[in-house]
Amino acid sequence: MQLTQSVHHAVQQTPDLTATIFGDRVRTWAESVDRVARLAAALTDLGVRQGDRIGLLALNSDIYHEFLLAVPWADAVLMPINTRWSANEIAFSLRDSDTRVLYVDDTFAPMAPQLRELAPCLENVIEGAAAVDRLIADHEPAPDARRGGDSLAGIFYTGGTTAQPKGVMLSHNNMMVSALGAVAATNTVPGGRYLHVAPMFHLAALSGWLLHNVVGGTHVLLSPFTPVGMADAIERHRVTDTLVVPTMLQLLVDSPATAEHDLSSLRRLAYGASPISDALLDRSTKRLPDTEFTQAYGMTELAPIATLLGPDAHQVPRLRRSAGRAAPHVEVLIVNEHDVEVPRGDIGEVVARGDNVMLGYWNRPEETSQALRGGWLHTGDAGYMDEDGFVFLVDRLRDMIVSGGENVYSAEVENALAKHPAVAACAVIGVPDGEWGERVHAVVVAVDGVRPTVDELRDHVKEHIAGYKAPRSIEFIEVLPLSGAGKVLKRELRSRHWAGRDRSVS
Amino acid sequence: MQLTQSVHHAVQQTPDLTATIFGDRVRTWAESVDRVARLAAALTDLGVRQGDRIGLLALNSDIYHEFLLAVPWADAVLMPINTRWSANEIAFSLRDSDTRVLYVDDTFAPMAPQLRELAPCLENVIEGAAAVDRLIADHEPAPDARRGGDSLAGIFYTGGTTAQPKGVMLSHNNMMVSALGAVAATNTVPGGRYLHVAPMFHLAALSGWLLHNVVGGTHVLLSPFTPVGMADAIERHRVTDTLVVPTMLQLLVDSPATAEHDLSSLRRLAYGASPISDALLDRSTKRLPDTEFTQAYGMTELAPIATLLGPDAHQVPRLRRSAGRAAPHVEVLIVNEHDVEVPRGDIGEVVARGDNVMLGYWNRPEETSQALRGGWLHTGDAGYMDEDGFVFLVDRLRDMIVSGGENVYSAEVENALAKHPAVAACAVIGVPDGEWGERVHAVVVAVDGVRPTVDELRDHVKEHIAGYKAPRSIEFIEVLPLSGAGKVLKRELRSRHWAGRDRSVS
Repeated sequence: MQLTQSVHHAVQQTPDLTATIFGDRVRTWAESVDRVARLAAALTDLGVRQGDRIGLLALNSDIYHEFLLAVPWADAVLMPINTRWSANEIAFSLRDSDTRVLYVDDTFAPMAPQLRELAPCLENVIEGAAAVDRLIADHEPAPDARRGGDSLAGIFYTGGTTAQPKGVMLSHNNMMVSALGAVAATNTVPGGRYLHVAPMFHLAALSGWLLHNVVGGTHVLLSPFTPVGMADAIERHRVTDTLVVPTMLQLLVDSPATAEHDLSSLRRLAYGASPISDALLDRSTKRLPDTEFTQAYGMTELAPIATLLGPDAHQVPRLRRSAGRAAPHVEVLIVNEHDVEVPRGDIGEVVARGDNVMLGYWNRPEETSQALRGGWLHTGDAGYMDEDGFVFLVDRLRDMIVSGGENVYSAEVENALAKHPAVAACAVIGVPDGEWGERVHAVVVAVDGVRPTVDELRDHVKEHIAGYKAPRSIEFIEVLPLSGAGKVLKRELRSRHWAGRDRSVS
Repeated sequence: MQLTQSVHHAVQQTPDLTATIFGDRVRTWAESVDRVARLAAALTDLGVRQGDRIGLLALNSDIYHEFLLAVPWADAVLMPINTRWSANEIAFSLRDSDTRVLYVDDTFAPMAPQLRELAPCLENVIEGAAAVDRLIADHEPAPDARRGGDSLAGIFYTGGTTAQPKGVMLSHNNMMVSALGAVAATNTVPGGRYLHVAPMFHLAALSGWLLHNVVGGTHVLLSPFTPVGMADAIERHRVTDTLVVPTMLQLLVDSPATAEHDLSSLRRLAYGASPISDALLDRSTKRLPDTEFTQAYGMTELAPIATLLGPDAHQVPRLRRSAGRAAPHVEVLIVNEHDVEVPRGDIGEVVARGDNVMLGYWNRPEETSQALRGGWLHTGDAGYMDEDGFVFLVDRLRDMIVSGGENVYSAEVENALAKHPAVAACAVIGVPDGEWGERVHAVVVAVDGVRPTVDELRDHVKEHIAGYKAPRSIEFIEVLPLSGAGKVLKRELRSRHWAGRDRSVS
């Protein structure tokens, strides 16, 4: 299978159907794929060869959609970049993957000089939409390279628990199998209009884009997210499908400014990153009575879908805290530290197996074989499974914090914090937050009792990593609780904040 | 992917759901898969090793379902046998594929001695349901071999009516990709009850079984087909899904004996082998107002699905004659004799490409490379594609007549002829002609022995289609020779005329 295969169907079967809507710009499938074929020719002309990585640093737009197709069309490899990363983080991923061609949209064009300096591997930077249009105008359509199957389709960097992000290598089959499995498990119908409001560099959003190509329909692209912008787009374009994180949903249904919008066209809403609270689900169901809710759980390494919680399960209060059941294309088990399946109800690590499991981490054979030991992808998530196969996540083994839909790795924040001269020791945890789901919270042992302010520490952290990762609250402590092995007992630190609450994702 | 993967989901997620219903015998998924695991152990104990072929000569039953799983579970290869074949044809396929273990159900057990004699490769014949039960009782469950991907899953013999049968080799991925693509393209829902009334040795029926495993639900197995038996099963078991050939549908909706049955549970009906007439669709829609109709076109070599005509297209009279559009997992084109795509509307050969295309013909490298030349499976079907990608089949290429340099599609002439009131049935073939190369020749079954003249029939045909397509000669026959699948054996009709000559297209 190939990432591009569905758009050949679109050109054959629905050439005059709208492919993309971005603001006032509307393109049919015939037009969109013609642009893709010309853009692919331009990439080849820029020296891109089979397997070369092409970086994408851009907000959602129809041009993002075109690059997602043109890169495989030109036999190259996608390297979508987290738009919230600092220049240093981006440059690391460019160097690590030896990326030579980068697209930056108009928003990120000002970053180009710095990136060129920090990532000398870059040979060509395509800056802004006008440059893309010129490339397209200057080239004749190229044929689709049609490489597919188990060959590399993309490298997707995920924040590591160690200092450096890791590049997850996914094949065409990995991503297509996940898309087909998700389509098979859900009530999708052709001809819908899918609103892309979650950032498309995230594999969750990219996967929504891919499965909508498989089903066939129209992409509505929006960026950046605002509740009113989302409501406007749904109303104006009669959007039928979308994918969000719960924070976005909460803002959409709770904002007074969206109260009068007609959202009645929305049929299916997928959400990920964390479960939805009963209160939010109730308010959402009231606001969106004709919308079916599906939760997807997975990770980049799974291309990305492992489990799905469908509309029926949402009717069962007990199951709303679940991440759902294994999707048709993947097997999921809960295992102990010896990789043996545990009895139902017992907590262990969530592992997954299937054709969606990544090829490995780019240039990291040891971490790859560790993650894939025994043929199963070890998610690092702790959870249990009930008698009906529903998975309940109870902890993240690596203490990842999910704040506003973004994964924040505590070790990374701790590394940044620890560089401040007033910080003797620290631990970063997620604590409950009404707005963000979880908030990044730092527990700090101060040097000589000198207590820096929150703002001072936040500013310091932001010099090193993206702003959303900086702690929003800080507490000081005399000494960190340590395990016998000398590891910080985060569970203990969290317990005060989470007392009496169900921290199903932490 | 693996043929068995979905039943691991069933055991994990719905162990107490009914897996199979056969007559009064009902088994849950936990029970069914336990039997499968024991049967697989028994096969291994009989000497079955990785890749060995296991023949299945049986009517539909829950035991057929168990063998379909136990064979891959034991790391062996399925070889389902056409139950309408003669002992000689069956023995040929057994010898050709070097099959050593055969299951014959109680219906076919009397054939076993003859098959042993004709196919000396047979080492073990499991005779009847009681023998299977004994094997299951005598063995502990074995683990699933879980071989999958591109490895051989089954050999399916086709073409017995026209030539020596060929064994189509399909991999696990071939069949799973087709199943996932079909599920993705149709409105399937978990928990349904699928009635298997078409014989399961046919890949169409086997594919229905596989996709229902992917979706998750209950199999209701019935054999042999009778309209009342089918109506009884639908009513009694609240069947939601089924797959038929149009003849079965016609018998179901037209039989007076089924007029009082409650068929209201049926939600989705798939049919294949030929389009459905407007009259039959109208009667079916009246009898089954809550049932969606989907036509599937494909062939064994495509594992099996190429195109689908969904419920919406059935609402458009013009499209009801179409075989539908390429399913998500496969590309379909119409090409000329140089394998170049023809303009929309022009007739050419239907070719298909995708992960569902067979590995090849067993031990027939030349026929394999001929069928797969250029990376496309050549279907041998002639057809055209409209502007929206809908494929309309006009004939088998080998039934096409080349007369005076013009291509004449026999199906088109037959449709025109059949409208004459004196024609009960007919078949149109090409016969050798000194002047025209081939001459359009009609074989007609007359109504009540009333024999119209050649001129009368020619004039009638010319009212509907071009004059050069009208038959230049006619013969009358009592009854047309039919294949087991109910298709006219044109090869047989032609043989008299072509004796001793070479017909290049055949």
